[in-house]
This record gives sequence, C-alpha cells and structure tokens, in this order.
Amino acid sequence: MPLAFALGGVVAPPPIQQAASTTSSDVFLGLFVLFVAAKLGEELARRLGQPAVVGELLGGVLVGPYALGWAQLTEPAAVFSEFGVVILLFAVGLEVRIDDLLAVGRPAALTAVIGMLLPIAGGYAVGIAIGYPSESAIYVGLALAATSIGITSRVLADLGVLDRRFSRVILGAAVIDDILVLIAIGIVEGLTTGDTSTSAIGLVISAVGLLGLGFLAARRARGLPREVFTWPLFADTPLVPAFIFMFGMALLSAYLGLAAIIGAFVAGLIIAETEAREEIEREIHPLSLIFTPFFFAYTGAQLDLRTLTDPAVLALVVALIVIGVLTKTVGGLVGAWSTGRWSATAVGFGMSPRGEVGIVVANLGLASGLLSPTAFSAVLVAVIGTTIVAPYLLAFAIPRAIREESAGGEGQGGAPVEPAPA
Amino acid sequence: MPLAFALGGVVAPPPIQQAASTTSSDVFLGLFVLFVAAKLGEELARRLGQPAVVGELLGGVLVGPYALGWAQLTEPAAVFSEFGVVILLFAVGLEVRIDDLLAVGRPAALTAVIGMLLPIAGGYAVGIAIGYPSESAIYVGLALAATSIGITSRVLADLGVLDRRFSRVILGAAVIDDILVLIAIGIVEGLTTGDTSTSAIGLVISAVGLLGLGFLAARRARGLPREVFTWPLFADTPLVPAFIFMFGMALLSAYLGLAAIIGAFVAGLIIAETEAREEIEREIHPLSLIFTPFFFAYTGAQLDLRTLTDPAVLALVVALIVIGVLTKTVGGLVGAWSTGRWSATAVGFGMSPRGEVGIVVANLGLASGLLSPTAFSAVLVAVIGTTIVAPYLLAFAIPRAIREESAGGEGQGGAPVEPAPA
Repeated sequence: MPLAFALGGVVAPPPIQQAASTTSSDVFLGLFVLFVAAKLGEELARRLGQPAVVGELLGGVLVGPYALGWAQLTEPAAVFSEFGVVILLFAVGLEVRIDDLLAVGRPAALTAVIGMLLPIAGGYAVGIAIGYPSESAIYVGLALAATSIGITSRVLADLGVLDRRFSRVILGAAVIDDILVLIAIGIVEGLTTGDTSTSAIGLVISAVGLLGLGFLAARRARGLPREVFTWPLFADTPLVPAFIFMFGMALLSAYLGLAAIIGAFVAGLIIAETEAREEIEREIHPLSLIFTPFFFAYTGAQLDLRTLTDPAVLALVVALIVIGVLTKTVGGLVGAWSTGRWSATAVGFGMSPRGEVGIVVANLGLASGLLSPTAFSAVLVAVIGTTIVAPYLLAFAIPRAIREESAGGEGQGGAPVEPAPA
Repeated sequence: MPLAFALGGVVAPPPIQQAASTTSSDVFLGLFVLFVAAKLGEELARRLGQPAVVGELLGGVLVGPYALGWAQLTEPAAVFSEFGVVILLFAVGLEVRIDDLLAVGRPAALTAVIGMLLPIAGGYAVGIAIGYPSESAIYVGLALAATSIGITSRVLADLGVLDRRFSRVILGAAVIDDILVLIAIGIVEGLTTGDTSTSAIGLVISAVGLLGLGFLAARRARGLPREVFTWPLFADTPLVPAFIFMFGMALLSAYLGLAAIIGAFVAGLIIAETEAREEIEREIHPLSLIFTPFFFAYTGAQLDLRTLTDPAVLALVVALIVIGVLTKTVGGLVGAWSTGRWSATAVGFGMSPRGEVGIVVANLGLASGLLSPTAFSAVLVAVIGTTIVAPYLLAFAIPRAIREESAGGEGQGGAPVEPAPA
C-alpha cells in the first residue's frame, strides 16, 4: 500500500467484480492456514526459547507458495497483512508519549540520515561490483534504504521495553527515515526517468506537513475527554471512532507517499494523549491479536526459497543482508551513540528490518526494466531476510542496553547517558 | 463463500499473485468508505429513530458501485463482509444455551420446513406466471428459499431479545433451514443437470453429522475450564484459540455445503457452555464492532438500483419481495403458532431476510443459462430487498411478541405459551 499512489502505475488496479460474485472458499482457507501456521510457529518458537515473531514468520514461510503451497499470496491476505501492521503500529503509538519522542529528536534524526545514506551507498557498491549499470545499482541501494519497524515494534512490545529510550529513538528515527526515503525515491525516479519532480517536491512538503500537524495535534490532544470519541450514537465505546481515525490517517499517509504505518503510528500518538487512551488500548488489543499474525505470516510467505538454490544469487542475497544490517547498525551506533554503546547498537539493529517499501522499490526497478528478475528476487529475499535476522540481533542487544541504562553512564560514547524514565 | 465447494465451478479461483505484489490503495480506500458510510448511515438512522442496521445497509447502497461508486465490490471487501457475519453469528451463538435451543426443536423444525417449501412454490409460480420455462422458474423459487439470519441476529441483539423464545425459534429454524436448502439445491441440480446426486447425498449426511456432533459437543462442553483455551503459550487469553475454532468450524461448514455462519454459530454454542464464555464474549466484541459493518454495507452496496428503472423488472422485484416475506411469515405463523400469535409472526419476519445463499443460487442459475441476466438481477435485488424490509417488520412485531409473552398465554394458538426465561 505505501507509495502506490505517489509512484503510480506500479500496482494494477483491482478488477471490479460482478455484483453477485461471492468469494471462493480457497481464499478463506488460505487465510486460515496462514493464521494457524503463524500461531503454531509461535508456539514452537516459544517452546524452543526463540522469539515468538520468528515463529510466525517461519510458519508463513512453511505454508507459503514457495514451500508447502497451502496458502497463496491472495489480495485479501495482503489486506489482512497490511491491516495487521497498521493496527500494530497504532497500538505502539498508543504507548508512546509525544514529549518523550520529541526528546530524542536529535539522535533519531542522525540515526535516520546516516542509516539512510549508508545502505544506498552499500547497495549501490554491491550492484556496481557485480557489474550492474549504475541506474540498476542505485535501485538495489534504494530498496535497502527504508526501515519497516513492524517487526521491531513487535519485539519491543513482546519484551515490554517500549518505554525505553532506545525504543523511542527507533520509533522517531523510523518516522524520519520514511520521509527521507520518500525524498530519495523522488530523486532517483527523477534521475532514472528524467521526469520533472515538482510533484514529488509537493508530496514531500505535504508529507512533512502531515507529520508536523500530527505531532502538533498530539501535543494539543492532551487531556481531551472521552466524549470526543463517544458523542456519535454509533459509538457506545471509543473504539469505532478511533478505528476510523487510525484508518483515515493510514490512508492519508499512504496517499502522500509515506508508509501507511507511519500515519497509524501518528494516530496512536495523538490518541495516547487523550483520556480515552486506556480504553482504546484495551479494545484494540483483540484486533491486534487477530490481525498482526497475518502480517508476519504473509511476510514470511513471500520468501522465495528457490532463489537461494543458485549459489551466485545466494551469495548476493547474503551480501545484501549483511550490508543491510551493517549499514543500519552503523547508522544507529553513530546516530545514537550519545545514548550509550549497547543502546545505540539496539537502535541500529532495530532499524535493520526492511519491509513493504523495499518491496515496492524493487517492484519499481523490475517494472522499469532496471532490475532483472534475478536481481529483483535477490533484493526481495534480502528484504525479508533482514526481517528474520532482526529479532535475534535485538534479543542479543536489548538486555545489554537495559543493563547499560541501569548502570547509568557506562556508555563508551563519552557523551552523558540519560537514564530512561521508569 | 457458502456452497462454493459443494456446488463447484460457480466461483472462479482467485488469481495467484506475484510474490512481490502489493495491494492498491484503492482497495483500502474502498474499505474505508464502506466502513464510514455504514457508520454515518447508522448515525442518521438512529437520529431519525430508524433501525441502526438499515442505516448501515443504506450507507452501503449510497457509496456502492450502483450509486456514488466510491466503493467497489472488491474481493477483500467481500472477505471482510463474510468475516463480519461469521463473527456476528459466533457472538450470537455465545449468547445462546444449547438446551434452550433444543427446547424449541419442534416449532423450529416446522417453521423451517414450511418456510422452505412455500417460497420455492411461490417463486416457481411467479416464474411460470411470467412465462419462464419450469427449469428457470424453479431457480427463482430456490433463490427465495434460504434464510440468512445475519440481519435478524443483529436486530435481535440490538433490541436485547436474544434470550427470548421467538429468538431461539428463529436461530433453530435457521440451522434446520440451511440443511433443507442444501438438500433442495442437490435435488434441483440433479433435476436440471441430470447429474447423479450420490455425492450430494454424502454431503447432506456429513452436514447433518457436523451439526449433530456440534450440538453433542455443546452439551459435553458444559463447565470446561478456561485452561482448555489458554494452555498454548501463544494464548495469553482465550481469544486466539476461540477465533481459530470459530474460523475452522465456519470453513468446515462451508466445505460441507452449509453456510459458513452456521458453523460459526455452532462454534459459539459450544464455547458458550465453557467457563471462558464471558471473557471470549468481551474479547470478540471489538472484532464484531469493526467487522460487522462491512457485512451490512457490502450487502447494501450490491443493490443494483438500475434494475428498478424498468417497470416490468420493478414489478417482478416487488412481487418476489412480497412473496418472499409472505411465505416465510406463513412458515413462522404455522410452524411457531404454539408460541403465540405475535411471537410466531416475529419468527416469520425474522426468517424473511435472504442472503448469500440466495445470491449463490441466482449465480448458479445465471451460469447454467437458466436465468436470464434480467431475471438474475431481479432475484438479486429481491434478495437484498428482503434484508432491508426485515428490520422494520421485526421492529413492529417484537414489542408485541414481548407483551404477549409477558401477558402469558394470550396467544391465540390455543397451545400453551411458555414464558421466556428472564
């Protein structure tokens, strides 16, 4: 969904169905299989002491079209998946206070900028090294640029560390990162297609404006009473108006070329300041339990294992994953160094997963002929690979970052380390 | 979804998408528009003192492809709609005790049988009267045969009368009705295509078996502890296992040729007997709030208003709606007469709405060439028309049925009227 409007023409419009058509049971069976696979994967992972979300991803890989083939990548499954990550980021936004987020503005911005430029350079270098023309190589870099914090959010929530300083740096950096990617895509599109980018500039201004207004709204929303949500007769509880607000912000965000999850996150930030926060948190939880597994299983199901059978492609995939993780880690280390060594590492690892935006960029490259089908597959697998690797990296870094925070000021950055609020 | 497997070939399988495809924002925008239209429609309806659900339906009509065209009938919208009614019937099942349902077995069965045979005869008669060949006329009758209690359930829940005797008769009759329709479709298909129906007989036996086992399971489930749901590590609350059970029962039901909502209802009946009932009721409520509006708005959006511009077709539609409601009302009056006059009327009105099954039958007739496109449209509009009319009829009959029950024994059926439990 993200970028589909801004970039135009990547995604075919859905066919308009006959009035009387009903949907095949196969679609429902596929959804059922995805959901059950995610939950069985989670069960197995947790019993083996692994991150729950890795189990959901691998459950999806297993039943997906490139392994058992029990679940296809249907459009309804894509929609459930997107709803899953939108609701997840909304729920994360509900747990974050806008002031805490603004307080980490500087390390977040630095992390985003560095963590954006390095992957583009790294991906470009890999592309050039294996003989791609420079227009193609730049797409490889661009696909590696955009963080998707769905999985990181889930890991942070599972570990109960959303209120930590490094979590807020990650969330802030992800928002900034998304704007930067929007700009970068506009520039690269302009360079490769020769299109004038005035409309792209307009989009960037609108996107920045949306986020600015959103942040302002969050500060203004403090203490708004529950009745702001429950005045309509249809709203016995605040859930339905909150859902409409979340959904609308996600759509608006997508229209402006940002990721839908950014809009949902900002919607959560705003509602977090109102008095309806706790009630909405409680009511959104069941929706999150049902929708988010689709996101992780669907992501896993996109992993094309056949790509990995060609040693050359496998090498490329591994190189892209390593560069993808390393460059974001450096971005976090440098950008968030002031927060402490392990905290900065956790930030870098947390920014590593790529997602839908990377997939959309790869699609753009494929559609314009600048990425070969093989390069496209390799980039896709690498994008999903960064997502599977991240929970392990985070599980390693986060306990250390917490100890570091507790110890207070042991970070080796020389800069003062502020203790996280309780 | 219902019947798609049993009948085969009606519905084209969904295309397998590319691994890297993302979904157009148009699909999400359509979902957003449907949801907001449903809620604005509800708001207006409630402010005007009309049934909420009529507002949701008309909201869907307004934004649907045959009016403003802001929301198309996409496959994801169909899936959300189906989930909506499945979750609704699951929630209704959670509020019904199996013993109360079995206690109304006789009036429910009578209502179902009479309310099944009369519409077939009535629709057939209309078809013959306007000059259709008898194979075509039988499809008109068949499309009018199957009750879909989604809207009735919603009205009963909105009015808080799910625990009344007439509500239980409606629910019981709807379950039996669904089996009878399955049998009727098998017979008509056999008659018109000449196919042997041994597999149809097998399906009917399996379907009856599923419901029998479900009812047995509900009686056995009494007092099962919460831990039956929460033993998996992924189940912090009973919701996710309950959702899997509901979804699985809905699918199984659809595979056997029954409506998916019947399976979901039986799943609700079973869980209602366990100790996790209240917790699951509370957790399913937010899902119901978000999903069910899609069902009503989507149903409304299918109303092809253009059909009504041809006076001949309009006359046919009106005739079919009148016959559709009258025949079910007679079914209720005769079948449930023992429960009291107004109670029986409420049963008949409650059985009037037709839904997906009628649409599937109409599709079958269209696909086999036995229904002309015009006849098909007329049947479709009539099916949706019965759904829009029903809440008004119920709003008229239910208060009278309640007064009758309270008065105790004033029913004119001569038979004793049992008071409803509090």
